[in-house]
Amino acid sequence: MKTLPGKELAAAVRAQTQAEAAAGPQPRLAVVVATADEASLWYVRSIAKAAAGVGIACDLVDLGPGAAPDRIGETLARLSADPNVHGVMMQTPLPAGASAQELAGAIDPRKDVDGANPLSLGRLAAGLPAFPPATAAAVMALLDHYEVELEGRRAVVAGRSTVVGKPLAHLLLDRNATVTVCHSRTRDLASVTSTAEVLVAAVGRAGLIGAAHVAPGAVVIDVGTNPTEDGGLTGDIASGEVAAVAGALTPVPGGVGPVTTALLLRHTARAANLP
Amino acid sequence: MKTLPGKELAAAVRAQTQAEAAAGPQPRLAVVVATADEASLWYVRSIAKAAAGVGIACDLVDLGPGAAPDRIGETLARLSADPNVHGVMMQTPLPAGASAQELAGAIDPRKDVDGANPLSLGRLAAGLPAFPPATAAAVMALLDHYEVELEGRRAVVAGRSTVVGKPLAHLLLDRNATVTVCHSRTRDLASVTSTAEVLVAAVGRAGLIGAAHVAPGAVVIDVGTNPTEDGGLTGDIASGEVAAVAGALTPVPGGVGPVTTALLLRHTARAANLP
Repeated sequence: MKTLPGKELAAAVRAQTQAEAAAGPQPRLAVVVATADEASLWYVRSIAKAAAGVGIACDLVDLGPGAAPDRIGETLARLSADPNVHGVMMQTPLPAGASAQELAGAIDPRKDVDGANPLSLGRLAAGLPAFPPATAAAVMALLDHYEVELEGRRAVVAGRSTVVGKPLAHLLLDRNATVTVCHSRTRDLASVTSTAEVLVAAVGRAGLIGAAHVAPGAVVIDVGTNPTEDGGLTGDIASGEVAAVAGALTPVPGGVGPVTTALLLRHTARAANLP
Repeated sequence: MKTLPGKELAAAVRAQTQAEAAAGPQPRLAVVVATADEASLWYVRSIAKAAAGVGIACDLVDLGPGAAPDRIGETLARLSADPNVHGVMMQTPLPAGASAQELAGAIDPRKDVDGANPLSLGRLAAGLPAFPPATAAAVMALLDHYEVELEGRRAVVAGRSTVVGKPLAHLLLDRNATVTVCHSRTRDLASVTSTAEVLVAAVGRAGLIGAAHVAPGAVVIDVGTNPTEDGGLTGDIASGEVAAVAGALTPVPGGVGPVTTALLLRHTARAANLP
């Protein structure tokens, strides 16, 4: 079995992004945060650090875990209207009572570098230019980097989130794959996932996908990032047993994750250069 | 095999819509037309007639087959801004060079009664309130009318149009079906469609789906409306041979079609009563 790490691709995307960022006025990403969740704050700081590394300015706009939904929406709208800000991202989780989908409607689609606005998802589905969520884009970038054929092939996406599963289904359809979306209510999950030539797991349940879920030789992309007891990360794929069946598998950590951050920055540099 | 006609359901929807329309100020639907295509004009006139039958005003705004895209977009925006118009629909085909997806962005989502604006599709995908395209809504209404179980079942949609296949995939996912979208580039179509407990054909190719494409007992919904040489309509399903295999099948004509028109009017009445 072939392992498909993301670090080399992420480094290439970052290098290209750095060049794009240096070519014009400095791109600026604003990340709106309204949580005390440690993993979330860690991720946001890692974005800021990666942005600095490629010459992109990154403002953390921390509204605190008690922020009212209206205030979050107003902040997203204000940043969207600010000509000095090129990318706007809203970090989840949000305070209780706030709907990420509704609030993200306040992000200008031209600055929606993490594809959170439902209009971005709709434009993506309709085949119009739009930024996909960085995670969904990272899955496609990895498949392309490793030259995985998609045309006419059977792709199965486990997970139907607005952030990964649904936009990914549209990106795969756009590449002429035959696409199945399965989820927690799917009966006999293994019978569905084992039809996949390309299988993407984006459910958020450690070890959900075992050897019985995977067709021999399948390309398996693991989007899961589940915390382990020792403070590490593990994917949705039971990698030990799946390695004996799959043809190729992305590692966690070091697979989709680094590519996601790199693409978020690429989107920001591109947003800064939109005509 | 059970036949699943749409006329009874359409009549029930029309009766309910007539009551809703009579309860407030008269709803008004504006249909923008920019084609000389006879089938299209026939369909638009049938909408106007059906609207009159349930007490909904219907304006045909005919810009002619040579209308410039800008003029179509401006017309959609003007109608969207008109407080006396509650539903705005853009009939296809459009003149060469006009993008239906881009132009439909000018329709206020609250008046987008045929779900043509990419924002409506994105909101639908994100689980937010939105009008689905009337055809996609008609498929769901027929499945519900005939009490077809969807939870956890395998649904296959043949066709990936923005008008039917894609929104329908989201509507089926939202009902907890496991959903596969296949299309012209799908390899071995029969091997995919024959896994369906619920199969929807929305490709636009007469007789594409034969007996070998259908699992014994499957519920089959035929969205195809292909013109026949004698001036009639035929579906995407080869109904003669499929009838021997399927558990249930919608007829063409008289299946999805009448329900679609009735739901377009229901959406208009609802748009008129949005808070």
